[in-house]
Amino acid sequence: MMKNIALNLKGKRKAKIIAENRFSMVKKMHKNSFEKAAAEKKADGQMLSLCGFIAKTRHFFTSSSCAGRIILLQLPKDENKQQASFHRKWHMAVSEQELWEGIKAKSRGELWFKLDPFILHIGANSMANANRILAGMKKAGVKRGGIIVAKPGKYLIEMQGTQSIAMPVKKGKKILASEQLMHYILQRANKKLEKNYAHLKRLESVFREELE
Amino acid sequence: MMKNIALNLKGKRKAKIIAENRFSMVKKMHKNSFEKAAAEKKADGQMLSLCGFIAKTRHFFTSSSCAGRIILLQLPKDENKQQASFHRKWHMAVSEQELWEGIKAKSRGELWFKLDPFILHIGANSMANANRILAGMKKAGVKRGGIIVAKPGKYLIEMQGTQSIAMPVKKGKKILASEQLMHYILQRANKKLEKNYAHLKRLESVFREELE
Repeated sequence: MMKNIALNLKGKRKAKIIAENRFSMVKKMHKNSFEKAAAEKKADGQMLSLCGFIAKTRHFFTSSSCAGRIILLQLPKDENKQQASFHRKWHMAVSEQELWEGIKAKSRGELWFKLDPFILHIGANSMANANRILAGMKKAGVKRGGIIVAKPGKYLIEMQGTQSIAMPVKKGKKILASEQLMHYILQRANKKLEKNYAHLKRLESVFREELE
Repeated sequence: MMKNIALNLKGKRKAKIIAENRFSMVKKMHKNSFEKAAAEKKADGQMLSLCGFIAKTRHFFTSSSCAGRIILLQLPKDENKQQASFHRKWHMAVSEQELWEGIKAKSRGELWFKLDPFILHIGANSMANANRILAGMKKAGVKRGGIIVAKPGKYLIEMQGTQSIAMPVKKGKKILASEQLMHYILQRANKKLEKNYAHLKRLESVFREELE
Protein backbone atom coordinates (compact mmCIF):
# COMPACT_ATOMS: atom_id res chain seq x y z
CA MET A 1 0.00 0.00 0.00
CA MET A 2 2.78 2.43 0.96
CA LYS A 3 4.40 1.79 -2.41
CA ASN A 4 1.13 2.65 -4.13
CA ILE A 5 0.88 5.87 -2.18
CA ALA A 6 4.41 6.79 -3.15
CA LEU A 7 3.67 6.02 -6.82
CA ASN A 8 0.45 8.00 -6.58
CA LEU A 9 2.31 10.99 -5.13
CA LYS A 10 4.86 10.76 -7.95
CA GLY A 11 2.00 10.73 -10.48
CA LYS A 12 0.41 13.74 -8.82
CA ARG A 13 3.70 15.66 -8.91
CA LYS A 14 4.05 14.89 -12.60
CA ALA A 15 0.49 16.01 -13.32
CA LYS A 16 1.16 19.20 -11.37
CA ILE A 17 4.23 19.97 -13.46
CA ILE A 18 2.29 19.34 -16.69
CA ALA A 19 -0.50 21.67 -15.48
CA GLU A 20 2.03 24.36 -14.53
CA ASN A 21 3.69 24.16 -17.92
CA ARG A 22 0.35 24.42 -19.66
CA PHE A 23 -0.56 27.50 -17.62
CA SER A 24 2.80 29.22 -18.31
CA MET A 25 2.42 28.63 -22.03
CA VAL A 26 -1.16 29.97 -22.19
CA LYS A 27 -0.32 32.95 -19.96
CA LYS A 28 2.66 33.85 -22.14
CA MET A 29 0.56 33.65 -25.30
CA HIS A 30 -2.19 35.91 -23.88
CA LYS A 31 0.37 38.34 -22.42
CA ASN A 32 2.02 38.67 -25.83
CA SER A 33 -1.22 39.23 -27.70
CA PHE A 34 -2.28 41.83 -25.09
CA GLU A 35 1.06 43.69 -25.38
CA LYS A 36 0.84 43.60 -29.17
CA ALA A 37 -2.73 44.98 -29.12
CA ALA A 38 -1.70 47.70 -26.63
CA ALA A 39 1.31 48.71 -28.74
CA GLU A 40 -0.84 48.87 -31.88
CA LYS A 41 -3.50 50.86 -29.98
CA LYS A 42 -6.02 48.13 -30.72
CA ALA A 43 -6.70 47.40 -27.05
CA ASP A 44 -9.73 48.98 -25.41
CA GLY A 45 -8.48 52.22 -23.76
CA GLN A 46 -10.64 51.86 -20.66
CA MET A 47 -9.40 48.28 -20.20
CA LEU A 48 -5.65 48.89 -20.68
CA SER A 49 -4.75 49.64 -17.09
CA LEU A 50 -6.59 46.61 -15.63
CA CYS A 51 -5.32 44.17 -18.27
CA GLY A 52 -1.80 45.61 -18.00
CA PHE A 53 -1.84 44.98 -14.25
CA ILE A 54 -3.18 41.41 -14.60
CA ALA A 55 -0.56 40.63 -17.26
CA LYS A 56 2.17 41.46 -14.71
CA THR A 57 0.85 39.10 -12.02
CA ARG A 58 2.32 35.60 -11.68
CA HIS A 59 -0.85 33.52 -11.51
CA PHE A 60 -3.31 35.33 -13.81
CA PHE A 61 -3.86 36.53 -17.35
CA THR A 62 -6.68 38.18 -19.31
CA SER A 63 -8.07 37.06 -22.63
CA SER A 64 -10.80 38.64 -24.83
CA SER A 65 -12.35 41.54 -22.97
CA CYS A 66 -14.41 44.68 -23.67
CA ALA A 67 -14.74 47.70 -21.36
CA GLY A 68 -18.34 48.38 -22.38
CA ARG A 69 -19.78 50.12 -25.42
CA ILE A 70 -22.71 51.67 -27.22
CA ILE A 71 -23.49 49.95 -30.52
CA LEU A 72 -25.87 49.79 -33.43
CA LEU A 73 -26.08 46.10 -34.27
CA GLN A 74 -27.34 44.91 -37.62
CA LEU A 75 -29.25 41.62 -37.80
CA PRO A 76 -29.74 40.82 -41.50
CA LYS A 77 -32.13 38.00 -40.65
CA ASP A 78 -34.24 38.11 -37.50
CA GLU A 79 -32.79 36.21 -34.59
CA ASN A 80 -29.73 35.00 -36.44
CA LYS A 81 -26.89 36.21 -34.24
CA GLN A 82 -24.23 34.46 -36.32
CA GLN A 83 -24.87 36.97 -39.06
CA ALA A 84 -25.01 40.00 -36.78
CA SER A 85 -22.57 42.79 -37.59
CA PHE A 86 -21.59 46.12 -36.07
CA HIS A 87 -23.25 48.97 -37.93
CA ARG A 88 -21.69 51.48 -35.48
CA LYS A 89 -19.58 50.98 -32.35
CA TRP A 90 -18.49 53.52 -29.72
CA HIS A 91 -16.35 53.11 -26.61
CA MET A 92 -17.34 56.52 -25.25
CA ALA A 93 -20.36 58.80 -24.83
CA VAL A 94 -22.25 59.27 -28.11
CA SER A 95 -23.79 62.50 -29.45
CA GLU A 96 -27.31 62.60 -30.89
CA GLN A 97 -25.83 63.66 -34.20
CA GLU A 98 -23.60 60.56 -34.35
CA LEU A 99 -26.45 58.31 -33.31
CA TRP A 100 -28.85 59.61 -35.95
CA GLU A 101 -26.22 59.52 -38.68
CA GLY A 102 -25.88 55.81 -37.83
CA ILE A 103 -29.61 55.10 -37.61
CA LYS A 104 -30.32 56.89 -40.90
CA ALA A 105 -27.43 55.27 -42.81
CA LYS A 106 -28.42 52.32 -44.99
CA SER A 107 -28.76 49.08 -43.01
CA ARG A 108 -30.18 45.62 -43.63
CA GLY A 109 -32.79 43.73 -41.61
CA GLU A 110 -33.22 44.77 -38.02
CA LEU A 111 -31.09 47.46 -36.37
CA TRP A 112 -30.66 47.29 -32.59
CA PHE A 113 -29.52 50.03 -30.25
CA LYS A 114 -27.48 48.48 -27.42
CA LEU A 115 -25.51 49.48 -24.38
CA ASP A 116 -23.28 46.50 -23.54
CA PRO A 117 -21.57 46.37 -20.13
CA PHE A 118 -17.92 45.39 -19.69
CA ILE A 119 -16.98 41.76 -20.17
CA LEU A 120 -13.72 40.42 -18.81
CA HIS A 121 -12.05 36.99 -19.04
CA ILE A 122 -9.38 36.15 -16.48
CA GLY A 123 -7.31 32.96 -16.53
CA ALA A 124 -5.85 31.49 -13.33
CA ASN A 125 -3.38 28.67 -12.67
CA SER A 126 -5.33 26.95 -9.89
CA MET A 127 -8.72 26.55 -8.33
CA ALA A 128 -7.55 28.48 -5.26
CA ASN A 129 -6.53 31.42 -7.45
CA ALA A 130 -9.77 31.21 -9.46
CA ASN A 131 -11.56 31.54 -6.12
CA ARG A 132 -9.55 34.69 -5.36
CA ILE A 133 -10.96 36.20 -8.57
CA LEU A 134 -14.52 35.26 -7.53
CA ALA A 135 -13.90 36.85 -4.12
CA GLY A 136 -12.57 40.03 -5.78
CA MET A 137 -15.64 40.22 -8.03
CA LYS A 138 -17.90 39.90 -5.02
CA LYS A 139 -15.98 42.60 -3.12
CA ALA A 140 -16.25 44.96 -6.11
CA GLY A 141 -20.00 44.29 -6.47
CA VAL A 142 -19.76 42.43 -9.80
CA LYS A 143 -22.80 40.17 -9.65
CA ARG A 144 -22.66 38.38 -12.96
CA GLY A 145 -20.01 35.81 -13.88
CA GLY A 146 -18.25 32.65 -12.77
CA ILE A 147 -15.71 29.97 -13.59
CA ILE A 148 -16.44 28.77 -17.12
CA VAL A 149 -13.47 26.39 -17.54
CA ALA A 150 -11.92 24.33 -14.71
CA LYS A 151 -9.15 21.96 -15.77
CA PRO A 152 -5.74 21.34 -14.17
CA GLY A 153 -3.62 24.32 -15.25
CA LYS A 154 -6.52 26.11 -16.93
CA TYR A 155 -9.13 27.98 -14.93
CA LEU A 156 -11.07 30.65 -16.77
CA ILE A 157 -13.41 33.18 -15.17
CA GLU A 158 -15.87 35.29 -17.16
CA MET A 159 -17.48 38.36 -15.62
CA GLN A 160 -19.82 41.05 -16.85
CA GLY A 161 -21.23 44.35 -15.66
CA THR A 162 -25.00 44.74 -15.39
CA GLN A 163 -25.61 48.08 -17.09
CA SER A 164 -27.60 47.27 -20.20
CA ILE A 165 -30.02 48.60 -22.81
CA ALA A 166 -31.17 46.55 -25.83
CA MET A 167 -33.95 47.42 -28.27
CA PRO A 168 -34.71 47.33 -32.00
CA VAL A 169 -34.90 50.86 -33.46
CA LYS A 170 -35.25 50.21 -37.21
CA LYS A 171 -36.57 47.49 -39.51
CA GLY A 172 -35.40 47.61 -43.12
CA LYS A 173 -35.76 51.27 -44.13
CA LYS A 174 -38.37 52.00 -41.49
CA ILE A 175 -37.17 53.90 -38.39
CA LEU A 176 -39.34 52.74 -35.47
CA ALA A 177 -37.98 54.83 -32.57
CA SER A 178 -38.87 58.53 -32.33
CA GLU A 179 -36.31 61.33 -31.86
CA GLN A 180 -37.90 62.17 -28.55
CA LEU A 181 -37.49 58.60 -27.24
CA MET A 182 -33.92 58.24 -28.49
CA HIS A 183 -33.03 61.63 -26.99
CA TYR A 184 -34.03 60.23 -23.59
CA ILE A 185 -32.52 56.78 -24.11
CA LEU A 186 -29.19 58.05 -25.43
CA GLN A 187 -28.80 60.31 -22.43
CA ARG A 188 -29.49 57.32 -20.16
CA ALA A 189 -27.10 55.14 -22.17
CA ASN A 190 -24.28 57.68 -21.87
CA LYS A 191 -24.86 57.91 -18.12
CA LYS A 192 -24.94 54.12 -17.80
CA LEU A 193 -21.70 53.81 -19.79
CA GLU A 194 -20.05 56.21 -17.34
CA LYS A 195 -21.31 54.13 -14.39
CA ASN A 196 -20.07 50.99 -16.14
CA TYR A 197 -16.56 52.46 -16.51
CA ALA A 198 -16.61 53.54 -12.85
CA HIS A 199 -17.53 49.97 -11.88
CA LEU A 200 -14.62 48.64 -13.93
CA LYS A 201 -12.27 51.04 -12.10
CA ARG A 202 -13.59 49.76 -8.76
CA LEU A 203 -12.95 46.21 -9.89
CA GLU A 204 -9.42 47.15 -10.92
CA SER A 205 -8.65 48.76 -7.56
CA VAL A 206 -9.91 45.64 -5.72
CA PHE A 207 -7.72 43.40 -7.89
CA ARG A 208 -4.72 45.67 -7.31
CA GLU A 209 -5.24 45.29 -3.56
CA GLU A 210 -6.01 41.58 -3.50
CA LEU A 211 -3.89 39.99 -6.23
CA GLU A 212 -0.13 40.16 -6.31
CA MET B 1 7.03 10.55 6.35
CA MET B 2 4.82 7.50 5.76
CA LYS B 3 3.08 8.22 9.06
CA ASN B 4 2.42 11.79 7.92
CA ILE B 5 0.94 10.52 4.66
CA ALA B 6 -1.34 8.17 6.59
CA LEU B 7 -2.45 11.00 8.89
CA ASN B 8 -2.94 13.22 5.89
CA LEU B 9 -5.12 10.59 4.21
CA LYS B 10 -7.17 10.24 7.39
CA GLY B 11 -7.63 14.04 7.49
CA LYS B 12 -8.72 14.04 3.85
CA ARG B 13 -11.29 11.30 4.47
CA LYS B 14 -12.69 13.27 7.39
CA ALA B 15 -12.91 16.45 5.29
CA LYS B 16 -14.66 14.46 2.56
CA ILE B 17 -17.28 13.19 4.98
CA ILE B 18 -17.90 16.71 6.31
CA ALA B 19 -18.30 17.99 2.73
CA GLU B 20 -20.70 15.16 1.86
CA ASN B 21 -22.81 15.88 4.92
CA ARG B 22 -22.93 19.55 4.08
CA PHE B 23 -24.06 18.77 0.53
CA SER B 24 -26.80 16.33 1.67
CA MET B 25 -28.16 18.93 4.08
CA VAL B 26 -28.24 21.74 1.51
CA LYS B 27 -29.72 19.45 -1.18
CA LYS B 28 -32.46 18.30 1.18
CA MET B 29 -33.34 21.88 2.09
CA HIS B 30 -33.57 23.00 -1.55
CA LYS B 31 -35.50 19.88 -2.54
CA ASN B 32 -38.05 20.55 0.19
CA SER B 33 -38.50 24.19 -0.73
CA PHE B 34 -38.89 23.24 -4.41
CA GLU B 35 -41.51 20.59 -3.59
CA LYS B 36 -43.36 23.02 -1.36
CA ALA B 37 -43.38 25.70 -4.07
CA ALA B 38 -44.54 23.13 -6.68
CA ALA B 39 -47.36 21.90 -4.42
CA GLU B 40 -48.48 25.46 -3.75
CA LYS B 41 -48.28 26.26 -7.49
CA LYS B 42 -45.76 28.99 -6.73
CA ALA B 43 -43.02 27.42 -8.87
CA ASP B 44 -42.53 28.71 -12.40
CA GLY B 45 -44.62 26.41 -14.66
CA GLN B 46 -42.05 26.32 -17.47
CA MET B 47 -39.34 25.40 -14.95
CA LEU B 48 -41.21 22.64 -13.07
CA SER B 49 -40.18 19.70 -15.22
CA LEU B 50 -36.46 20.59 -15.26
CA CYS B 51 -36.29 21.39 -11.54
CA GLY B 52 -38.33 18.27 -10.71
CA PHE B 53 -35.85 16.12 -12.63
CA ILE B 54 -32.80 17.73 -10.99
CA ALA B 55 -34.37 17.30 -7.53
CA LYS B 56 -34.50 13.53 -8.14
CA THR B 57 -30.81 13.19 -9.07
CA ARG B 58 -28.28 12.17 -6.40
CA HIS B 59 -25.60 14.79 -6.92
CA PHE B 60 -27.50 17.95 -7.90
CA PHE B 61 -30.16 20.39 -6.75
CA THR B 62 -31.65 23.65 -8.04
CA SER B 63 -32.08 26.85 -6.10
CA SER B 64 -33.68 30.18 -7.12
CA SER B 65 -34.55 30.05 -10.81
CA CYS B 66 -36.80 31.81 -13.34
CA ALA B 67 -37.90 30.42 -16.71
CA GLY B 68 -37.88 33.84 -18.40
CA ARG B 69 -40.43 36.65 -18.32
CA ILE B 70 -41.73 39.92 -19.71
CA ILE B 71 -41.86 42.65 -17.09
CA LEU B 72 -42.53 46.31 -16.49
CA LEU B 73 -39.97 47.32 -13.89
CA GLN B 74 -40.39 50.43 -11.81
CA LEU B 75 -37.29 52.37 -10.74
CA PRO B 76 -38.45 55.06 -8.28
CA LYS B 77 -35.03 56.71 -8.34
CA ASP B 78 -32.84 56.50 -11.42
CA GLU B 79 -30.23 53.78 -11.30
CA ASN B 80 -31.16 52.54 -7.84
CA LYS B 81 -31.84 48.86 -8.43
CA GLN B 82 -32.33 48.14 -4.73
CA GLN B 83 -35.57 50.07 -4.88
CA ALA B 84 -36.76 48.52 -8.15
CA SER B 85 -40.13 46.82 -8.05
CA PHE B 86 -42.29 44.81 -10.44
CA HIS B 87 -45.03 46.99 -11.89
CA ARG B 88 -46.23 44.06 -14.05
CA LYS B 89 -44.81 40.54 -14.54
CA TRP B 90 -45.79 37.86 -17.08
CA HIS B 91 -44.47 34.33 -17.61
CA MET B 92 -46.18 33.98 -21.00
CA ALA B 93 -46.86 35.95 -24.19
CA VAL B 94 -48.40 39.37 -23.48
CA SER B 95 -51.19 41.11 -25.42
CA GLU B 96 -50.96 44.76 -26.45
CA GLN B 97 -53.98 45.47 -24.29
CA GLU B 98 -52.29 44.06 -21.19
CA LEU B 99 -49.09 45.92 -21.97
CA TRP B 100 -50.77 49.30 -22.40
CA GLU B 101 -52.92 48.84 -19.31
CA GLY B 102 -49.62 48.40 -17.45
CA ILE B 103 -47.83 51.32 -19.10
CA LYS B 104 -50.75 53.69 -18.54
CA ALA B 105 -51.33 52.67 -14.91
CA LYS B 106 -49.82 55.02 -12.34
CA SER B 107 -46.11 54.39 -11.78
CA ARG B 108 -43.26 56.22 -10.06
CA GLY B 109 -39.91 57.27 -11.53
CA GLU B 110 -38.73 55.36 -14.57
CA LEU B 111 -40.65 52.45 -16.05
CA TRP B 112 -38.66 49.86 -18.01
CA PHE B 113 -39.97 47.28 -20.46
CA LYS B 114 -37.87 44.12 -20.19
CA LEU B 115 -37.66 40.65 -21.59
CA ASP B 116 -35.52 38.65 -19.15
CA PRO B 117 -34.14 35.24 -20.25
CA PHE B 118 -34.22 32.16 -18.01
CA ILE B 119 -31.86 32.04 -15.06
CA LEU B 120 -31.07 28.76 -13.37
CA HIS B 121 -28.95 27.88 -10.33
CA ILE B 122 -27.74 24.31 -9.97
CA GLY B 123 -25.83 23.00 -6.95
CA ALA B 124 -23.43 20.05 -7.25
CA ASN B 125 -21.58 17.96 -4.66
CA SER B 126 -18.16 18.01 -6.32
CA MET B 127 -16.00 19.84 -8.83
CA ALA B 128 -16.30 16.88 -11.22
CA ASN B 129 -20.08 17.10 -11.12
CA ALA B 130 -20.01 20.89 -11.46
CA ASN B 131 -17.97 20.31 -14.64
CA ARG B 132 -20.69 17.94 -15.92
CA ILE B 133 -23.16 20.85 -15.61
CA LEU B 134 -20.79 23.14 -17.55
CA ALA B 135 -20.45 20.47 -20.26
CA GLY B 136 -24.26 20.11 -20.46
CA MET B 137 -24.66 23.89 -20.81
CA LYS B 138 -22.15 23.91 -23.62
CA LYS B 139 -23.88 21.01 -25.39
CA ALA B 140 -27.25 22.78 -25.13
CA GLY B 141 -25.77 26.05 -26.47
CA VAL B 142 -26.13 28.00 -23.22
CA LYS B 143 -23.35 30.56 -23.54
CA ARG B 144 -23.70 32.58 -20.39
CA GLY B 145 -22.91 31.24 -16.92
CA GLY B 146 -20.34 29.50 -14.77
CA ILE B 147 -19.40 28.22 -11.34
CA ILE B 148 -20.08 31.02 -8.87
CA VAL B 149 -19.30 29.13 -5.64
CA ALA B 150 -16.62 26.40 -5.33
CA LYS B 151 -16.11 25.05 -1.82
CA PRO B 152 -15.81 21.44 -0.63
CA GLY B 153 -19.39 20.10 -0.62
CA LYS B 154 -20.81 23.26 -2.19
CA TYR B 155 -20.49 23.96 -5.89
CA LEU B 156 -23.01 26.35 -7.40
CA ILE B 157 -23.49 27.01 -11.10
CA GLU B 158 -25.46 29.96 -12.44
CA MET B 159 -26.61 30.03 -16.06
CA GLN B 160 -28.70 32.39 -18.15
CA GLY B 161 -30.30 32.50 -21.57
CA THR B 162 -29.33 35.31 -23.94
CA GLN B 163 -32.71 36.50 -25.25
CA SER B 164 -33.09 40.01 -23.91
CA ILE B 165 -34.77 43.39 -24.39
CA ALA B 166 -34.38 46.29 -21.95
CA MET B 167 -35.51 49.88 -22.43
CA PRO B 168 -37.16 52.73 -20.52
CA VAL B 169 -40.67 53.45 -21.84
CA LYS B 170 -42.00 56.02 -19.37
CA LYS B 171 -40.65 58.68 -17.03
CA GLY B 172 -42.99 59.93 -14.31
CA LYS B 173 -46.32 60.47 -16.09
CA LYS B 174 -44.73 60.89 -19.50
CA ILE B 175 -44.99 57.92 -21.87
CA LEU B 176 -41.88 57.99 -24.09
CA ALA B 177 -42.42 54.98 -26.39
CA SER B 178 -44.98 55.20 -29.21
CA GLU B 179 -47.73 52.64 -29.82
CA GLN B 180 -46.17 51.84 -33.18
CA LEU B 181 -42.79 51.06 -31.61
CA MET B 182 -44.25 49.00 -28.77
CA HIS B 183 -46.41 47.08 -31.23
CA TYR B 184 -43.22 45.97 -32.97
CA ILE B 185 -41.21 45.40 -29.79
CA LEU B 186 -43.93 43.42 -28.01
CA GLN B 187 -44.28 41.09 -30.98
CA ARG B 188 -40.49 40.57 -30.91
CA ALA B 189 -40.51 40.07 -27.14
CA ASN B 190 -43.24 37.41 -27.38
CA LYS B 191 -41.26 35.60 -30.08
CA LYS B 192 -38.07 35.82 -28.04
CA LEU B 193 -39.85 34.46 -24.96
CA GLU B 194 -40.96 31.46 -27.01
CA LYS B 195 -37.38 30.90 -28.22
CA ASN B 196 -36.18 31.24 -24.64
CA TYR B 197 -38.59 28.53 -23.44
CA ALA B 198 -37.52 26.28 -26.33
CA HIS B 199 -33.89 26.76 -25.28
CA LEU B 200 -34.78 25.80 -21.71
CA LYS B 201 -36.43 22.60 -23.03
CA ARG B 202 -33.26 21.78 -24.99
CA LEU B 203 -31.21 22.28 -21.82
CA GLU B 204 -33.57 19.98 -19.93
CA SER B 205 -33.31 17.22 -22.50
CA VAL B 206 -29.48 17.41 -22.43
CA PHE B 207 -29.49 17.19 -18.64
CA ARG B 208 -31.90 14.22 -18.78
CA GLU B 209 -29.46 12.43 -21.08
CA GLU B 210 -26.25 13.38 -19.32
CA LEU B 211 -27.04 13.44 -15.61
CA GLU B 212 -28.32 10.49 -13.67
